[in-house]
Amino acid sequence: MIAQTPKPPYYAVIFTSIKENDLEGYTEMADKMEALAKQQPGYLGIESASKNISITVSYWESLEAIKQWKQHVEHIIAQQLGKEKWYEKYKTRICLVERDYAFEK
Amino acid sequence: MIAQTPKPPYYAVIFTSIKENDLEGYTEMADKMEALAKQQPGYLGIESASKNISITVSYWESLEAIKQWKQHVEHIIAQQLGKEKWYEKYKTRICLVERDYAFEK
Repeated sequence: MIAQTPKPPYYAVIFTSIKENDLEGYTEMADKMEALAKQQPGYLGIESASKNISITVSYWESLEAIKQWKQHVEHIIAQQLGKEKWYEKYKTRICLVERDYAFEK
Repeated sequence: MIAQTPKPPYYAVIFTSIKENDLEGYTEMADKMEALAKQQPGYLGIESASKNISITVSYWESLEAIKQWKQHVEHIIAQQLGKEKWYEKYKTRICLVERDYAFEK
């Protein structure tokens, strides 16, 4: 689903990754982290798609909210497992959403 | 591929869409627009993935570069066809990338 975000400004975290072949445990952890992210203060929404690469964009009210989520103890464990097991490489970009516009039929 | 972008700040355009079932002509147009975008001044890179939704993130040096690309005559035709034929809905977000970090095994 396209995230229902408020009027800008707000923040986006663009997480682009290339995964390993052996993804044992990955889906469970990804689902768990998405559910946990939704409970965090300042969480606004998430969008995710993957084919050759995976792109997950999460939306947040503030840099502080992003920082808190990055430091959440269960998220830290997931990040560590991700580096050890599931990700060949990734890039994270912290962005200020300045403007947006939408189209719907 | 994960885009090889320079040190921030730079801009990202997050384009999230849900497509119609009949996508006749879509892939050719998407390929053409990606090739054309790469030739534009200020273009930095592109990342794309799709499953239930499609996410395409393009990266740019400046707001001016984004504006120029949005107003490119062939791109305007593609945008119009997209609204008429291929997209059920979409959201475009213009973002300032403030920070990024990467991991690679």
